[in-house]
Amino acid sequence: MTRIIGIDPGLLHTGWSIIETVGNNRKYISSGVVLPPRSENLPNRLAFIFREVSKLCDTFCPDECSIEITFVNKNPQTTLALGHARAAAIVAVADKNIPIFEYEPNKIKKALTSAGHADKDQVYKMVRMLLPAAQPKTPDESDAIAIALAHANMSKFNF
Amino acid sequence: MTRIIGIDPGLLHTGWSIIETVGNNRKYISSGVVLPPRSENLPNRLAFIFREVSKLCDTFCPDECSIEITFVNKNPQTTLALGHARAAAIVAVADKNIPIFEYEPNKIKKALTSAGHADKDQVYKMVRMLLPAAQPKTPDESDAIAIALAHANMSKFNF
Repeated sequence: MTRIIGIDPGLLHTGWSIIETVGNNRKYISSGVVLPPRSENLPNRLAFIFREVSKLCDTFCPDECSIEITFVNKNPQTTLALGHARAAAIVAVADKNIPIFEYEPNKIKKALTSAGHADKDQVYKMVRMLLPAAQPKTPDESDAIAIALAHANMSKFNF
Repeated sequence: MTRIIGIDPGLLHTGWSIIETVGNNRKYISSGVVLPPRSENLPNRLAFIFREVSKLCDTFCPDECSIEITFVNKNPQTTLALGHARAAAIVAVADKNIPIFEYEPNKIKKALTSAGHADKDQVYKMVRMLLPAAQPKTPDESDAIAIALAHANMSKFNF
């Protein structure tokens, strides 16, 4: 049995999920969204993400972490903000010595929907089909579950 | 008396400095460079920066932190790597509830050399002139001292 934390980082919303995997079975444990206070400055928002993800690791004791690789998009400032949020989440997990696996966004989508360019709605539908117990309320939460599921499917390890 | 930690973040070298300021006097305390092991993956290098900066805060108990604002440069991948390293350092400081002040690179240079586009050699010379006790061995260390000095000079607070 391996417990996976999936993280979809963002400075406004950081989605997270916890799933368990035994052989080909996947079990939904929990999921949600970290919302750094918008009124705070960048350092305090990053510290908020760090502390919340750190608490999730303490609460759920995941064995492995799955997270998207950030690509440079059209807006470099957005990419930079995403990079900061991503690093805050990564540091929280890596500081607990939990191994982190990074996946390209299109590989995550392909692992679930067999289409590299699936939209958020298709990802949501696959998440609901694969894990009926999961009822993500936002795309960030749905994506975080997809990221954990993709790792379970793509990982070379035998669970 | 206010003790300032200056940080020049980078995924290969993260420069740091500790200075003290009383009125118009500046005192050099310490400085150095954090070198994340190049053989490690990104998460472990970020965790290394986080832990080392966290240790510096525990050792030197700074009251305030000064750090450069990252700008998007010609190579977006470099910018993204810098953003990750910067966030790892910021989280270490912010998690200790130490206020962080962010400055644009040209303002830091201007505060010390009166030229916004001073090169690293000019910054080094000003650091050596203002703090003869400081003998930075690398540009990252010199820049980290300059970042702390700039905050001391530009801060609105009365030290």
